[in-house]
Amino acid sequence: MNRFSLLIFGLLCFNIVQAQSTDSAKDSAFIAQIFRQSLTHSDAYPWLRGLCKDVGHRISGSAAAAKAVTHMKAIMDTMKLDRVELQPCIVPAWVRGDKEVVQILDRRGKVSRQCRALSLGGTIATSANGINAEVIEVDGLATLDKMDSNAVKGKIVFFNRHMDAGLIYTMNAYGGCVDQRGQGPAHSSVLGAAAVIVRSMNPEIDTFAHTGNTNFREGINRLPALAISTEDADYLSAQMKEGKVRIFCQSSANIQPDVLSYNVIGEIKGSEKPEEIILIGGHLDSWDVGEGAHDDGAGCVHSMAVLQVLKALNYRPKRTIRCVLFMNEENGLRGGLAYADSSKARGEQPLVAIESDRGGFTPRGFTIEGGEESQAKYKLQFDRIRSELENYDLKIKSGGGGSDIGPLKSQGAMLIGFEPDNQRYFDFHHTKADVFEMVDKRELDTGTASIAALVYLLDKYGLK
Amino acid sequence: MNRFSLLIFGLLCFNIVQAQSTDSAKDSAFIAQIFRQSLTHSDAYPWLRGLCKDVGHRISGSAAAAKAVTHMKAIMDTMKLDRVELQPCIVPAWVRGDKEVVQILDRRGKVSRQCRALSLGGTIATSANGINAEVIEVDGLATLDKMDSNAVKGKIVFFNRHMDAGLIYTMNAYGGCVDQRGQGPAHSSVLGAAAVIVRSMNPEIDTFAHTGNTNFREGINRLPALAISTEDADYLSAQMKEGKVRIFCQSSANIQPDVLSYNVIGEIKGSEKPEEIILIGGHLDSWDVGEGAHDDGAGCVHSMAVLQVLKALNYRPKRTIRCVLFMNEENGLRGGLAYADSSKARGEQPLVAIESDRGGFTPRGFTIEGGEESQAKYKLQFDRIRSELENYDLKIKSGGGGSDIGPLKSQGAMLIGFEPDNQRYFDFHHTKADVFEMVDKRELDTGTASIAALVYLLDKYGLK
Repeated sequence: MNRFSLLIFGLLCFNIVQAQSTDSAKDSAFIAQIFRQSLTHSDAYPWLRGLCKDVGHRISGSAAAAKAVTHMKAIMDTMKLDRVELQPCIVPAWVRGDKEVVQILDRRGKVSRQCRALSLGGTIATSANGINAEVIEVDGLATLDKMDSNAVKGKIVFFNRHMDAGLIYTMNAYGGCVDQRGQGPAHSSVLGAAAVIVRSMNPEIDTFAHTGNTNFREGINRLPALAISTEDADYLSAQMKEGKVRIFCQSSANIQPDVLSYNVIGEIKGSEKPEEIILIGGHLDSWDVGEGAHDDGAGCVHSMAVLQVLKALNYRPKRTIRCVLFMNEENGLRGGLAYADSSKARGEQPLVAIESDRGGFTPRGFTIEGGEESQAKYKLQFDRIRSELENYDLKIKSGGGGSDIGPLKSQGAMLIGFEPDNQRYFDFHHTKADVFEMVDKRELDTGTASIAALVYLLDKYGLK
Repeated sequence: MNRFSLLIFGLLCFNIVQAQSTDSAKDSAFIAQIFRQSLTHSDAYPWLRGLCKDVGHRISGSAAAAKAVTHMKAIMDTMKLDRVELQPCIVPAWVRGDKEVVQILDRRGKVSRQCRALSLGGTIATSANGINAEVIEVDGLATLDKMDSNAVKGKIVFFNRHMDAGLIYTMNAYGGCVDQRGQGPAHSSVLGAAAVIVRSMNPEIDTFAHTGNTNFREGINRLPALAISTEDADYLSAQMKEGKVRIFCQSSANIQPDVLSYNVIGEIKGSEKPEEIILIGGHLDSWDVGEGAHDDGAGCVHSMAVLQVLKALNYRPKRTIRCVLFMNEENGLRGGLAYADSSKARGEQPLVAIESDRGGFTPRGFTIEGGEESQAKYKLQFDRIRSELENYDLKIKSGGGGSDIGPLKSQGAMLIGFEPDNQRYFDFHHTKADVFEMVDKRELDTGTASIAALVYLLDKYGLK
């Protein structure tokens, strides 16, 4: 290299460093604006109040779910977005009914304890007279599957594996336990059980039941199945150590015909690469208890507020920023599947999809599906993203994206899950306690800001 | 270097790396045990329930504060510690009394709004008939100090600077605002004001008052001064934009003679360097509203639970691990001063002092007073500490240590503040809302674990 080349090379290097540091200063300044705007002028919190208090809980197929669609679309219509759409999907309509009783009986057949119980999604009613049967306790599917059907037939199977409270990440404890709720009823059905009782999904002891979905493959008879509170589960387990225990249970859960429903979609069109889509989503349906505040009203208003904040700051994205409120995450995923079908049919390019479905708590970062591989592939972009987010104590880790966005993976989208702090999540998850008052305004708003910051960086630097 | 030397050198390096990585694996394993133990067997949460429900709020000098001392010592007596001590200190006894009224009057002198008000610590009563006077609004000390005393004399000064909701760290917003509560009454007194009203310290709008302390230097006359809720402050400020406003206020706050009280201290004696003390503390007193759950029952039970967890894991510390529940942080710091005096008199070596006084929320890390300097000085130790804590998303930053431990700085102690997430802190701070139910068990327990992990690492690697 001669002196002249060296000079040119040096100048080039200087310019690159200069440009990068100017860019980085611009990014930092804009992200600071995003945080300030989100904390002082976002409507996420009042929107969440409206969804929780004016609509309330909203299970797929219910009148409330239909109202939620209209309610959220009406808000999007006021946001001066480039496009608002209702995207049809056909959803299941499971109905809880008015009876859900679990009573632990003493040796004389009298009620010794009335449990706090909730029927599980996808399960069916007992006969009108209920079921009175002996209980067998198991610690999970593996134990049950080894049992002889004679030992199970006509009995009530009680799944009592505990979520591991010693794990730091409650989601990991959930992942290590939830198969007994999801698959336990079907496995019990195969062995001829009369009904199923499941310990609620909470690593701590509380006094109310946590509902959730069950899965029955085609050809397996559905069963009555109910969750009882962790306190009741401990009581029942202690009773069973004293000798045989019978339970009386009653449920009037049932499955109604499928219903036409909708995903609610709004977007800001990209100014340079409108065909590349950055999706932010949550799910609009909830379980039919509480108000679906953390799960997943928070994710819905996060997604909408990201668009609101970017618009308020007059940010004109290069790429299309799209907010999707998915229908039917809890018991069918029909909205996520319908969205992916439509995306494919329209030949769209989903660049990245971010889901917020872990509550409205203080943000800790993001999890990336196939994280290390993805970050290695887009090293330059992730170096920038990581260093900017680090200023807000936000970490990028490997982990899941989200249920609703899962079907977009095969279309080339990078899947990212928003990760708020998870310690309190199971205080509320799928219960009557998941109400608006349990969401803190600043925790919710910093979530909006964190996602908006990521969206801004992804839009600016792309993933190519 | 000859071949032999090279070999020896190589082996030495290998051994050092080996030893470090073995040590690191041991550290990681032990810290994992600390987290599991804290999350599954710590008594922090039931201890906090007892302090909040059986004792309740406990302002210095009150019967409840005396009860808190007895209550917590009784628990320490059951913990099989090497030493439990009540350390005397003389504390002030400010009493709220039964009257605290702030009414905004309309032009005809009728009450247009009854504010939610709390007298501030260290202030005095109005006359029995109360004060009816015109209000002047200021945005802080600087504005007031520039005013002519004729404009202030006989008036009620209303400090209405807002905590900046746009800042991510609520503690920074507090720091930028609290001088108007602490110093505002004294500055107003100098100018002849009749009384003071202060906007409550909360970046968000709520409907109840936040109390706190005021400082009057010797020779400045004390005044009646009350905090009103942020909602009331917004209302009052809006009214004042329409024209002159008068307020009626009444307080029966008063100062009683000083009272003998105590710090409560328990310790595990060091097995190798008992003279080096690692202190963990919180403050036992609270304001006289709510239950002092986050502020600072959480810090007290954190400190005790760190000892409990280390003992349960049969950890024999090299250094003395001492838990101190300080009396009178809120309105005098007499406990912190008494502790430092005693430490000096006894010729103790306080190696490091850690304070937990920012609530029982999810841990985010630690702040070190003179942080960068301290970390540079003890680089090797901090590299180890940082890498272990990083596994739990805990960061070490520069920042304050804590009020109670502050006086130990001059004795050579490194001061460290435990930093939990701060978004929700001002939902509760110094209010009736600071009750046991607002503390989440897992958030509290992960706090204990984080502090215990730091204590373990500091004990193992020291600071020399």
